Amino acid sequence: MSAAQARNAVLEELIAKDPKQFRVLTGDRPTGRLHLGHYFGTLHNRVRLQDLGVELFVIIADYQVLTDRDVADNLTEHVEELVLDYLAIGVDPARSTIFTHSAIPALNQLMLPFLSLVSVAELNRNPTVKDEIAHSRQSAVSGLMFTYPVHQAADILFCKANLVPVGQDQLPHLELTRTIARRFNDRYGKGGAVFPQPDALLSSAPLLLGTDGTKMSKSRGNSIALAASADETARLLKGAKTDSERHITYDPATRPEVSSLLLLAALCQGRTPQEVADEIGSAGAAALKKTVTESVNEYLAPIRARRAEYAQDRDLLRQTLREGNERARAAADATLSEVRAAMNSHY
Amino acid sequence: MSAAQARNAVLEELIAKDPKQFRVLTGDRPTGRLHLGHYFGTLHNRVRLQDLGVELFVIIADYQVLTDRDVADNLTEHVEELVLDYLAIGVDPARSTIFTHSAIPALNQLMLPFLSLVSVAELNRNPTVKDEIAHSRQSAVSGLMFTYPVHQAADILFCKANLVPVGQDQLPHLELTRTIARRFNDRYGKGGAVFPQPDALLSSAPLLLGTDGTKMSKSRGNSIALAASADETARLLKGAKTDSERHITYDPATRPEVSSLLLLAALCQGRTPQEVADEIGSAGAAALKKTVTESVNEYLAPIRARRAEYAQDRDLLRQTLREGNERARAAADATLSEVRAAMNSHY
Repeated sequence: MSAAQARNAVLEELIAKDPKQFRVLTGDRPTGRLHLGHYFGTLHNRVRLQDLGVELFVIIADYQVLTDRDVADNLTEHVEELVLDYLAIGVDPARSTIFTHSAIPALNQLMLPFLSLVSVAELNRNPTVKDEIAHSRQSAVSGLMFTYPVHQAADILFCKANLVPVGQDQLPHLELTRTIARRFNDRYGKGGAVFPQPDALLSSAPLLLGTDGTKMSKSRGNSIALAASADETARLLKGAKTDSERHITYDPATRPEVSSLLLLAALCQGRTPQEVADEIGSAGAAALKKTVTESVNEYLAPIRARRAEYAQDRDLLRQTLREGNERARAAADATLSEVRAAMNSHY
Repeated sequence: MSAAQARNAVLEELIAKDPKQFRVLTGDRPTGRLHLGHYFGTLHNRVRLQDLGVELFVIIADYQVLTDRDVADNLTEHVEELVLDYLAIGVDPARSTIFTHSAIPALNQLMLPFLSLVSVAELNRNPTVKDEIAHSRQSAVSGLMFTYPVHQAADILFCKANLVPVGQDQLPHLELTRTIARRFNDRYGKGGAVFPQPDALLSSAPLLLGTDGTKMSKSRGNSIALAASADETARLLKGAKTDSERHITYDPATRPEVSSLLLLAALCQGRTPQEVADEIGSAGAAALKKTVTESVNEYLAPIRARRAEYAQDRDLLRQTLREGNERARAAADATLSEVRAAMNSHY
C-alpha cells in the first residue's frame, strides 16, 4: 500500500466514524454535460460522501471556464445542465450546497490576500499549470490560468473545506492550497488557525477511455453523457474501438480499449472486469459491446429518469442555485469577516 | 509641448467646461502619514479637481500594502491617518467617496475576469512592475505584485472612473487598464461599452526631494508629514542638506538640494522658485531654510488645524469611511451586475 493509499484508508475510517467533521469542496467547470468518465471518476464518490453524512460544497466554476478558452459559451445552458446532472445523480440540495463561483464576491475577494502569500516562482513551478499551459489552445498563457492554483485555494478555503476529492494530477494544486492556508494562519492567525489545511481524498477509480480509445473528453465526441438517451448510448458504444482478438480478456496494458469497455460494464454491474470478461469469453467484441450497452443503460436508467423529470422544472433548478448561492455567500461572508479581523482590516 | 502635455491641456479644457462628465479614481496605500511630496505631487490636484466639480473616488488600497511587504502593520491606525489627511486637505466626503479596498468584495471580484484578459507575457513586460520588483525587499516576487496592474484595473474600472491622475511612471499601468477595458468591451460588450477607457491626467508637479537630497519617502525619515508640528518641520528643515555655495540660485541640475528647497517654498508661497531665490540672494543656506520653514508652516497651518480638529472626532472618521464604503459598494455592485449580464453569468 502506498503512502497515499494508506492516508486515504485513514481518511475513510475517520469519515465513517464521524462524517460531520468533514466538509468537502468539489465541483466542475460548466463546459457541457457530464459523462461517464466524470461519473465513475468523481461524481459517484461525491454522492457516496454526501450519503455518509459529509457536507458537500459543489462549485460550478464559471469564471474558470476562461482559463483555457477566450469566451465561456452558452454559460446559462451549461450551468443548468450541470445542476440537472447533479440532481439526477443524487446530490441533495437540502444537504449539499450547489453554487456558482461568480455569484460569491466574498469568495473572489480572497484572491488578493492569497496572491500575497505565493511567489511567482511557485506559480511557475506548478506542474499542473505547466501541463495545462502546454495543452491550451491559447497562444499566450493568460493571467487567469497562471493564477489558477490561487483561485482554487480561494474556492476551497472560502467555506473552510477540509477534504478535497482529487485525482493524482491535482495534488500539486491542493498542496499549494495547503501552503496558502498554513502561511495565512502563521502570518495572521494570532496563534489560532483561520483556515484548515485540507486533505486530499485521492480518487481510486480507474481511468475510463473514450470510445475511440483516447482520453474520454466532452470535446472529442468519444464520451457517453449521463443525459444521453439509451439509443445514443447504443450507437456510441457500437462504434467503440476494440481489437481483432475474438476472445475477450481484461488486460489494460496490452488491450486498453477492450479493457476499458469491460471496466465500464463492471462498474455498472458492481462486479470485477475479469468476471465480465469470463462471461463473454469467446463471443467477441459485438457481444462485449452488447453487454456494455445494456449495463450502462440499465445503470443510468433511474438517473436519466430523474434528470428528465427535473428538466421539466426550470424553476426548481433556479431555486436550487439561488438557495445554494445564498448558503455559499453566507459561508464566504463569515470567512471574509474572519479574514478581515485576522488582517486587522476591520475599520 | 509634448503629446502628453497637449493631451493634458485638452483634458483640462474639457474638465473646466463640463466637470460632471468625469469621474476620477485616485488613492494611496495606508503605510503611514502623507507628506509634502504627496501633497504637491497629487493631493493638491485631487482637491482642485473636486472643487472644479469632478467626482472623486479615493481608494485606501489596504490589500496592496502587501505587494512589497509581508505584513500590513498598524493598518487601522494608518487608515485613520489617511482619512484624517484627506479631510484636512479638503477632500469633502459629501462630494467625494473615500473607501477601503478590502471592504468592497464586488470590486475584488473583477480580478478573475480581468486576469483572463491579460497574458503572463504582458504582466512580465510591465516596466513599473519590473521596477517595483527590482526595488522590493522581498527575495521572491509575490503573485500579488505580479498581478498589480490587474488589481489596479479593477480599482479604477469598478466605479467606471474615466480619469486617473498619474505620474509618468504609472502610465504603463494605466495603459493595461485601458487594454483590459477595451478587451472586455470587445469580447462581452455586445456592441456597447461596459467600461470606459480611462484617460491619464499627467501630474505636472515637479519632484520634491527629501531633506537628505534623495527621493522623499516616508520610510527614509526625510519627509515632512502634513501632520508634523511646526517645530518638527523646523527641525527637519534645519537639518536639510544644502551645498557650500552661499549665493542661492535655482538650478535643479547642478544644485538639486537647494533647488528643491526653493521649489518647496515657492509652491507654498504661490511664486516661482527663481523669485524665492532672488529674494534670498547671498543670505545663504540658513536664510533659505528659514524662508522654507516659515512658508511651509504658514501654508500647512490651516490644514494642520483642521487635522487636529478632525483627530478629536474618531466617530466622524469611522462614519466617513462607513459612508464612503457604502457608496463604493453600491457602485461596485452595479458594475458587477453589468459584468454578469455581459458575461451571461446571471443564472
